[in-house]
Parts: sequence; C-alpha cells; structure tokens
Amino acid sequence: MLKTSNPPTPVETIAKERVNCPFDLWRMKCAMHGGEQWVNLKTKFMQEIERDPTFRLDDIHDLSKDQFRERTMAKFANMVHYVTTERLDIFTKRMELIGIADPSFWTRFGVHYGLFLGAIRSGATSNQFSYWMEKGVLGLNGMVGCFGMTELAHGSNVAGLETTATFDAKADEFVIHTPTISATKWWIGGAAQTATHCSVFARLIIKGVDYGTKTFIVPLRDPRNFQLLPGVNIGDIGKKMGRDGIDNGYIQFTFVRIPRAYMLMKHTQVSRDGKVYEPPLAQLTYGALLQGRTAMVADGANVSKKALTIAVRYAAVRRQFKTADNEFETQLLDYPIHQRRLMPLLAQAIAMGFTALRMTAMFEKLSEELDSFDSSSDKEQTERVLETLKETHASSAGLKAFSTWQCLDTIDKCRQSLGGHGYSAYAGLASMYADQAVQCTWEGDNTILSLQSGRALISAYEDAQKGKKLASGVAYLNDPSLLTARCRSDSMCVDLGMMDAAWAAISANVVKKAADAYTAKLKTGANKDVAMEGCSHERFCAAKIHTMGYIYRQFVDALETLAVEEPSGSTTVTTLKAICQLYGAFQIEENAAYFLKYGFYTAKQMDIISEKINQLCAEVRTYAVSLVDSFHYTDHIINSPFGRYDGNVYTAYFNAVRAANPSPPVHPYFDRLIKPLLTRQPLEMEDAASIEVDEEIEEIQRERLEGGVEAEREDGSFPMTEAQRSETEGTAEWEKKK
Amino acid sequence: MLKTSNPPTPVETIAKERVNCPFDLWRMKCAMHGGEQWVNLKTKFMQEIERDPTFRLDDIHDLSKDQFRERTMAKFANMVHYVTTERLDIFTKRMELIGIADPSFWTRFGVHYGLFLGAIRSGATSNQFSYWMEKGVLGLNGMVGCFGMTELAHGSNVAGLETTATFDAKADEFVIHTPTISATKWWIGGAAQTATHCSVFARLIIKGVDYGTKTFIVPLRDPRNFQLLPGVNIGDIGKKMGRDGIDNGYIQFTFVRIPRAYMLMKHTQVSRDGKVYEPPLAQLTYGALLQGRTAMVADGANVSKKALTIAVRYAAVRRQFKTADNEFETQLLDYPIHQRRLMPLLAQAIAMGFTALRMTAMFEKLSEELDSFDSSSDKEQTERVLETLKETHASSAGLKAFSTWQCLDTIDKCRQSLGGHGYSAYAGLASMYADQAVQCTWEGDNTILSLQSGRALISAYEDAQKGKKLASGVAYLNDPSLLTARCRSDSMCVDLGMMDAAWAAISANVVKKAADAYTAKLKTGANKDVAMEGCSHERFCAAKIHTMGYIYRQFVDALETLAVEEPSGSTTVTTLKAICQLYGAFQIEENAAYFLKYGFYTAKQMDIISEKINQLCAEVRTYAVSLVDSFHYTDHIINSPFGRYDGNVYTAYFNAVRAANPSPPVHPYFDRLIKPLLTRQPLEMEDAASIEVDEEIEEIQRERLEGGVEAEREDGSFPMTEAQRSETEGTAEWEKKK
Repeated sequence: MLKTSNPPTPVETIAKERVNCPFDLWRMKCAMHGGEQWVNLKTKFMQEIERDPTFRLDDIHDLSKDQFRERTMAKFANMVHYVTTERLDIFTKRMELIGIADPSFWTRFGVHYGLFLGAIRSGATSNQFSYWMEKGVLGLNGMVGCFGMTELAHGSNVAGLETTATFDAKADEFVIHTPTISATKWWIGGAAQTATHCSVFARLIIKGVDYGTKTFIVPLRDPRNFQLLPGVNIGDIGKKMGRDGIDNGYIQFTFVRIPRAYMLMKHTQVSRDGKVYEPPLAQLTYGALLQGRTAMVADGANVSKKALTIAVRYAAVRRQFKTADNEFETQLLDYPIHQRRLMPLLAQAIAMGFTALRMTAMFEKLSEELDSFDSSSDKEQTERVLETLKETHASSAGLKAFSTWQCLDTIDKCRQSLGGHGYSAYAGLASMYADQAVQCTWEGDNTILSLQSGRALISAYEDAQKGKKLASGVAYLNDPSLLTARCRSDSMCVDLGMMDAAWAAISANVVKKAADAYTAKLKTGANKDVAMEGCSHERFCAAKIHTMGYIYRQFVDALETLAVEEPSGSTTVTTLKAICQLYGAFQIEENAAYFLKYGFYTAKQMDIISEKINQLCAEVRTYAVSLVDSFHYTDHIINSPFGRYDGNVYTAYFNAVRAANPSPPVHPYFDRLIKPLLTRQPLEMEDAASIEVDEEIEEIQRERLEGGVEAEREDGSFPMTEAQRSETEGTAEWEKKK
Repeated sequence: MLKTSNPPTPVETIAKERVNCPFDLWRMKCAMHGGEQWVNLKTKFMQEIERDPTFRLDDIHDLSKDQFRERTMAKFANMVHYVTTERLDIFTKRMELIGIADPSFWTRFGVHYGLFLGAIRSGATSNQFSYWMEKGVLGLNGMVGCFGMTELAHGSNVAGLETTATFDAKADEFVIHTPTISATKWWIGGAAQTATHCSVFARLIIKGVDYGTKTFIVPLRDPRNFQLLPGVNIGDIGKKMGRDGIDNGYIQFTFVRIPRAYMLMKHTQVSRDGKVYEPPLAQLTYGALLQGRTAMVADGANVSKKALTIAVRYAAVRRQFKTADNEFETQLLDYPIHQRRLMPLLAQAIAMGFTALRMTAMFEKLSEELDSFDSSSDKEQTERVLETLKETHASSAGLKAFSTWQCLDTIDKCRQSLGGHGYSAYAGLASMYADQAVQCTWEGDNTILSLQSGRALISAYEDAQKGKKLASGVAYLNDPSLLTARCRSDSMCVDLGMMDAAWAAISANVVKKAADAYTAKLKTGANKDVAMEGCSHERFCAAKIHTMGYIYRQFVDALETLAVEEPSGSTTVTTLKAICQLYGAFQIEENAAYFLKYGFYTAKQMDIISEKINQLCAEVRTYAVSLVDSFHYTDHIINSPFGRYDGNVYTAYFNAVRAANPSPPVHPYFDRLIKPLLTRQPLEMEDAASIEVDEEIEEIQRERLEGGVEAEREDGSFPMTEAQRSETEGTAEWEKKK
C-alpha cells in the first residue's frame, strides 16, 4: 500500500536523541578532556583552524598528491608562530588536535620538531644545542630538519644500519657515506621537498674500528635556493597508503664531509685526536622515544572517537527495515546487533582516552626526573630514574601497540557500520584508515613492541620470584595467590572490583606461562636470545592480556579520582561507571579463553557476562549521541556529512558529492573508447575454414607444446599448452540462445 | 668491528628456499586449482593479459582517478571478444583471474554481464530475453547496462526502496520517478560514464496500489552521442576508498516513460489492462544472488594468496637483527613470531581455496536444477530445488561474510608484516586492502549475511528437533550426543578426525544456544521479528562457528577426494594434511573460548594445541616459499617488488620508486612557500605595551566571555573564553634557552 505518513527527518531524529540525556554534557566534556581548561583550549584551537584557509578540509579527498603536499607545506608558517610562543604542554595539546584534523601535517611538522629537534635536544651537548638554536632551528630560520634513521634494508634494527661516518683526523671531519643501495636512507619524511638538514644515524668508524651507530647533523640543501649540496642525492619515494601530504624521500650520501662538531656528543664523544668516550648510561638516550609513543596512545583514542562520532550519529538517523510493530523503518542504533558493533568500541575509545591522560602525566613526571638528572646524580637517584624509565618504557610499548591496533580496527568497523556509504571517500573513514595504518608500524613495529613488553614482563616476574617489590603497573606479580583466584559469586561477576581481580589473576597466569616457557627453553640448552624467540608467542599473549588489564585499571583509577573531584551523586561518574563496566566485560568476553582456561570465571559466569554486555549496550545506546557530543569535535574536524552534528546527512552528502564532482562539459573518452565499442562490426574469418591444414605439422606442434608443460620459467609462468586451446573451443552457451 | 663477510644476496637467499621442497610443485599446483586443465588455462590467461598494454599494472598507483577510469574502459573491447566466444565456465575462470589483476575492471565489466544481464536472464520472459539479445546486450552492440538497485537512503532493504514505476494504462507505459533526494539511485556502477541502460528497481504502482519492488529496463543515454535522455539526471559520485576505475554514479528519474514490456515479467506480470499476476515462488528470484557470493568466496581465497605471496617471499629475503649464534642477520621467516603471523594465514587461504572449489561445484549443480525447473515441475522436484536453494543460500551467506572478512584481515596483516615498506603504494598491499574492503559490504553486508546464516541455523535446529533429517552441511544438528562430546585423549587432540568432531560438537552447542535464546525471547511475548533481533549476538556467534567448522570440513573432504585421485604416498596429500591440521588447530585456538566453555577440550589440551601450532608453523615455514609458488601467479599479476619470484626486492623496489617519481626540474613550491618561511623577519609589536588600556573595559569584556562558556553552539563548538587567553600567556620554554 502507499505510505500514508512520512518518518521523522534525520534532523528531527537526531534532535530527539539529545533529549533526556542522563548526564551533564559540560561536566562530561571536562572529564573526558582532563579538565575545563583543556576543553576551552580545544575549542579555541578548533576555531582557529576552522578559520584558517590552509586547514580547509572539505576538498581534501579530491586533491592530487602534489596538491596535498603543497597544501600541507602552506600550514607551516602559521604553526611556527605557535610553536615559538606557546608553552610546551599547550602546544602539545594543539598538535594533538591538529593530528586529528590533518595527520599528514602533524607528521611533516613533527618530523622537524619531534624528531629532528628531539634528536638535538637529547643528543647534543649544551654548546651544540646553543649552536643549533642560534642557527635558527626553533623558528625554522634558515633551516628545516629531517630524521635520517631507517634505511632501505634496515628498519627497527638501528644496530644493523650500514651508513658510515668515518673520521678523517687530518681534516677534523666526518665523511658520511652510503655504501650500497640497501644502505640508502629511506622513508625520510621531509627529505623529498622540505628539509635543509638531516640528523643522520651512521656507524662511527675511527681508524678502522666500528663504534656502532651515532647521530650526525648533515646539511642537505642550500637554504637560499634549495640546491642539493655536493655528494647528496635525494629522491622522492612517492605514493603511500596514506599521509600523502608528507614528502617522504630517500637520501644517498657519497663521501659527504661535515665538521667533527656536527656529531651529537652528549653521550658518546670523539676528541680532536680521534679518541672515543662512551656514555655510562646508554638507556637514557631512549627517553626521547617515549614522547612519540605517548602521543600515539592519545592519538589512538582521539581518532577512535572521531570515527565513532561519525558512526554513532549516522546510526542514529539511518533507518533500515521495518518490523511488524513499527510505523517507520527502524533506526540502526535500535538494532541489538548494531549496538553490539558500536557500543563496546565507544567504551574502548573512552577507556583509551583516560589511559592516555594518565600516560601523559606519567611521561611528564619522567621528563622532569630526566631533566634533573646529570652526571653528578647519586646512585639512588640514578636507580630511581632508571626504574621509572623501565616501567614507562614497558607500559608505553604495550599501550602503543594495542591502542594503535584497536584504533585501526575501530575505524574499519565504523566504516563497515555505515554500509556502502562507508566506502565513499567523502565519508572520511577510508582516508582515516589509510592515515592511521602506519601508526602500527612506525616508532616501533607493534609486534616487536609487544614482544618487548612481554620480555619486560618476564623480567618483572623473575624479579618478583626473587622477592623484589615491583612498580604498581606489574604489582600483581608479587601476589602468587592470584594464580588460583576464582570468582565465587555469579551475581558479582561484572562488578568493577571483581573484574579488576579477574584481570590481575589472568595477567598473573599468562605472564607466568611466558616465563615458564622461557625457562623451559633455557633448560634445553638454548641461549637467552634463542629462548626468548622460542617463547615469543607466549610473550605476545602476556603483553596483550597485561595491556588490556592495564587499560582497564587506568579507567577504574581515573573513575576513582573523578569520584573524589566531582560532587557526590555526579551523573558523570555514574555514567562512566556503566561505560567502564561495559569496557571491562567486553574485553573479558573478547579474551574469554584465558578466563575460562585459568578458571577465574565458569562457563555459566561467561554467559552472565555476555548477557550483561547486551544489557549495557542497550543502556549506553540511550545516550550514545550525547556521549559522542562529549568528545567535542566541530563539524569541521569531523569532516564527514555522516557525522554532522545536526544529522542532516543525506542532503549534506548529496551536496558534497555534487560539489566535488561537477559534470564535465564533454565526456572524457566517449568518442575514443565507447563509441567504437558500441558500433563495431565483427571481423569475418569463417572462410578460413576451407584452407586445409597439414595434419602432421599439427601433431608435431602438439607434442612440442605438451612436452613444455613442466618447464617452468624463472618467474613461475608456463608456456601455453595444447590443453588450453581445446578448452576454449566451445561456443559460449549464451550464443546458442541468439 | 667492521664486517668481514657479506650475507647471501636476496636472490641467493630465496633460491635456497626452493631447494629440497618436499612436494611436487606441479602436482601441488594442480591440486590447488582443481585440476591440470585449470592451471594451464590460468597460465594462458596470465600470458594474454601480461601482453595486453591496457593491462599494464606497474604504473597504476600513480594514475589519477580520471586516468584510471579511462584505462579501465579501454579493457572492455578485448574482453567482449572472450565473453562472446568462450564457454561460460571458462570465461568465469578468466574473470576470476582478472579480478585479481584489476578488481575495478572486474566490477565495471561485471556490472553489465553479472548484474544487468543477470537481471535480464533471471527476470525476463523468453520473449523479452530474445528482445534484449537482439538489441545487442551480449556483445555490447549499441548498449551497456548498469544495475539500479540501491538508493541514497536505502541499501540492503529492497522492500524499502522509494523509486516508483506507475502504470499509465492509457499510454501502456510505466512512469519511472524519483520522488525525493533520499530515493536517488546511488552507487550505481557504470552510471556516471558507461551505461546506456539501467535495470531499475522500483515500486510497481497501479491504480494507487503498491505491489512492491519489481525490475524495469530504463534507457538512460542515446548510444550514438551519449546524451542523457529526457527526465534522466545523472551525476558522478566521485572518489571512493578503492576501485576508482569504476564510475559509480547517481541517477534521478523525473517522470521518465518506458513501454510496459520493459518491465521484466518472468515472475510478476502486468497485463495490458493493468492486472497483476504474482509469482508462486518468489524465492527462486534470489538464485542469481548466489553467483556473486560464490565468486566472492573464490576471490577472497585468491586475493589472500596474492597478499601472502608478497609477504612470504619478502619474509624469506628480509634480514633483521642478529643473534649471538648467527653470522648474518636473521631472515624474518626464521623468527617464530613471524611464522606465527604468516603460516596460519597461509593455511587459511588454502582452506578457503578448497572451499571455493567445492562451493563453485555446488552452485553449478544448483544452476542446473534451477534451469530444468519450470511451472510444469512436480511437487517433489519443487521441494528438492527449494531445499538445495536453501542450503546453498545459508552456506554461501556465512561463507561470503567470513571469507571476505578473513581476506581483508589477511591483507592488512601481510602489509604489517612488511614493516614500513608495506605502507608504500608500490608494495601493492594498500590498494589491495582498499579494493577488497567493499567486498565486506556489497552483495549483502557481512553482518546482515551472518545473521541470515544464524537464522537459517536456528530454523535447521528446529527442523532437527522435529526429527527431520538435515542436509549434509548441518547434519551435525541431528546428533544430540555431540552436545556433550569430549576429547578423551591428549595425544589425539590435533588429529584431523578429532578436530572434525570438535567443530561439530561446538557448532551444535552454539546453534543450540542461539535457538534457546530465540525461544526464550518468544516466551517473553516478543513476536518472531523482535525475538530474532533479540538473539542476534547469539545468531552471529552461531554463524561464525558453523562457518569455521564448515570450511574445515570442506578442506578435510577435499583432502579425502584428493587422496583417492593421487597415487598412494602422494607428497601433495601429506603436505596438505599438515596444512589442514594447522588450519584446524589455529581456528580452534582463535575460538578457544567455545571449546573450553563446552568442555570439548581441557585447558591442558588447549596448551597442547597451541604448542602443536608452533611446531606446524615451523614445519610449514620450511616449504613456505614453494607453497606460495604453487599459488601460481606471475610477477605481472603480483605487481609488487616485494613479491618478486626471483627475490631481488631492493633493487626492484628502488627502480620502481625512481621510475614512478622522476625529479622535477624545478621545486614546485620553494619560491612561494619555503623561501619566505626560511627567511622571514618577526613583526615587532612590543612597543604597543606603552599604550595604556582602560582597566574597566577589560573587566567587562572578561565577564562577558566567561559567561559564554556554557552557551554551546548548534554544531557543538564554543565561543572563546578568557581562560584560554591566560593559558597562552607563558613563554615557550625553549625560548628561554635562546
């Protein structure tokens, strides 16, 4: 029958979603962002970039790589103003937001300020530091840096790099050289079109002795005209999966000379006569890596929240299928399966957000300790700094890995939740995925980082066995009773405290399993390296479960802090408690095998947990739209018609598509390709059948071809055989019907 | 110390991998492809397209969308020759290969032959079919079709489409009309630049009565000049995540008239006087959908194999880190964790390949039955056809969903396994992912298909409870003793037969759980629709486990057939048995929670299974390079320097990058953007401090700004506040050091 009434419009539908929100939106925003001042700052940052024409976002999906790179470069000028005038923690927050709006710019700008300047800050003596500051490194006055670590055949393994820096004592210079193609500096962000200088990782060679990899500042281009300097060969490495606004390049050095003082000498020092002084504490040089990882945990949370804003708002307005009870098609958000797809991811992104806030605080504390540390520090201070560094390193390794993986997974699940429209570039999720993907690889490949985290856990386990009291993140290893802990109460199994106990118990078990596997390998006579490799699957599992439990605990701890700060009965706290419960229960279900295997929960309790997840999904669904509002992104940042605040998705999408794809006045290839196709006449070759073919010749040819079947070519291909010809002789069956 | 010897070159390294292959490569190829004739045909197809300049692949990553579309169109002419002259099963195999080389072309060509022509074949009366054949539909003579199903606001739900086809009895015509923006035909492949006709899904309206959605052939453009016909408005929907060689478009009809005979009337018929005759068996119209799904299962296997060829060959030649024992850096493939990353995926792709071969055979049998079926068929034949259709439908739904998901996951894991290089467009995995992603959405969204599969499983369970004997795919539901089956022997737990029993037992339990949940919802008074939605999580889990078990069983069955065909002691069979064991054990580990929960395996047995997976990974690693050789792709098809047969990856990659990115003679934006940045002078505004500001005015302004904090704007943004200004007052800490 013809429809008699129209469903509510998308705009009406989403407006209704915001009625009866059970929490105070402003308080929730403050909680999510770590305080009112950060919400206000974010508002300011968003307004600034929305008005900056170089941060135009609506057209980015149709820019060519070349256009995109140029647009990215145009943003430098404004941003230099902020980096030179803003307090570091504020500028860090600004960049955190910029990373969500334009990941390419975040990287390209970050190559100079995070990596190049970071290398100088952590590697230069104070005199060297002053020298580069005076040169203009902070304000990009006459120089832009890039970071020359990875080589074509060498990535994570810095110790395996091939580029050499050979000391020429006579000239008091280093000679930087790329000995082979595989030693070519590769993936160097900013090298192709931006940088005048490079912090080059190269093997220090003096009088034939290889002292391992050190860092050298090497000028690449004349800043006045951008001509390459003698011996420097740079190329563009071109198209990538994403982040095409960065001009990654390769660099080959052919006997390039730099003054001795251009080697960064805070740690290892080379004297005028070629003597080498090694640093007492090599680990301290890795402190700088942690800043990147911390930023990536925050970025993982923020990008997930952006993707979920799009998915949740669209799910609220999209209607599909009608059940017998309903007058109109059902909102996607009302389907239990759609709630199951999105609500746990929402809880996960929020858990990750709170973890990132705490991680940032941990990193800032570490930075202070490192800054106050120098060669005059006593043994106690040294040990304390090293212990903090160790814990931060191990925690950040696992967190970086699993938060970037979860973020990538969240983006693709959000994309799929949009159905076909998720595949449109204008939905924004495709480029978000492509941009995010590299986060799983750089600053430490996720799998390798997970194994490092697993190694640290085994080491902590061994310390605990020796009776050492461990840092808070792994304190559960001090309590052997956890190994046999059980949930004794069905009704309590999703209680926040019970789930905390569950994660501790299971973490203790998987770490013990990894440590036992390691010990067993050692007992077979394997050396430590081989034994560690031999238990890598167990290490990986330990890192995963430990990290999931760690994130859950960060969320619970954040709630406890919030409960103290907020007025009693705060709706922010009660709402977040439900979300924390959903997160904990969801991750327990995801990793159910461990909880069952070690007997913490029974099969029946696992069913209770799954049923509770269903209920919590339904509950969070009721305020899901307000919850994504509390992530506090403007439409400009979201940059997707499907994630619009006002819900007017179809009109906005239609207009966006039409604006980006105006009809061309003339079809680009109708005359050349389509017209000849539609009007062609078949070639007649039938009369050739009357020519008689010598049977004998055919037979010889057949034998030759059949004999060739097994003679595979170098590239794995085969010459054509007779069998193929006979297969193609049949007439297409459709032809018969003609 | 300086290195004293060089490691083997990549070419030497991979050559060594092929020595001592434990199986006969040719026999393995034949097994993987379902017989010698198919390997030969594939060889022929690969040679044909390698020599066809329109199938050039080395430059595709740098083509613009417009260039890519034109290139895609240029392939039509050659392919029309094959589609009109080759036997259907052979041409289907050709397209299967083409789909691996160029997924965009596969789709764009498939829109006409699979969807448009498919709609005519399944929907037209024999007279109508003859009419369109005479028009030239088979040979693209004067017409190219597109498929007008989805609308802007309507995807999976065909019954909810808004486009109308109103019968004008006086003129004996239908009037096709798009009533709203949300009814705009959207995502229509080929609409923007290719099609002259469209098979439009529209609501049949006669004398005010809505008869639901039917199919109508609507001319769009004049084939002589490609001008749009009156009332037809078409636009380009532009950039997508992938497959940019397809010109997806939107279509709006404004009272477009077509003759009555352009409605496809094999099923529903409309007479001259507007009487409607409905079909007795609507289900039969869905048979055509199955062809697409079957092809997608095969495609999932093939694409996975392509990605794994790249990942495995690269892992063989890439060296990274050195352990104390080794002279050279270790090959990635020798790391247990890398084996764990890739070997199970290899086994999974092979399992999927065998499943696809059997699925294709099942579909061909069904097609024969459907072809021999007509209105004269008796009740028995009707029931048999319906039963086959039901089983094929349910199996193919789950298989399509989980095989496309697994393929997508495999591609991204392969990409990550390449480290940084996986992010280069030239590695080929980024575009493979982007092209594959849509397979999870079209031809039935994976989540919805999984739920359909779950619904069918509940229905089968109910049939079994009533004592009905079920088809082979779900026969395990006939055996209630499976619910409590246990593995009683630790040493047998990874035996092929035991794992088969394990999957059956666990499948029986999860299906029962879903059915019980459904019944419980019904008992609360919910209607059937609501009850089905209420148990959708359980349905989803049932579909997943059933499908995983189904694939395992297909692999085991294929091995049994192969064991009969091959000579006794065949190395093909023994090798594939190990791979099958790895696949089964891996999926059991992945879904361990179910096996533990229902008690089929004990915790100790799960440890034995995990340990066995480690061993099998190490075993398969020894011949992994030969195994990917048996996937039988030429370097042209692989199109990735990292997946080269000869292993010469670094040189090939370097050359590919350099060829694709020649150095421009002039920097594109140095003068405009970089030079002004590097040479700029700061603006002086310090002297403004001497101007006295009226304190009172400042105070008023501050109050106004602070009052505005909570006044959130419509789009979720906020006006700037005073708090923000104070935050930015500090001087950057670096500045102090200046």
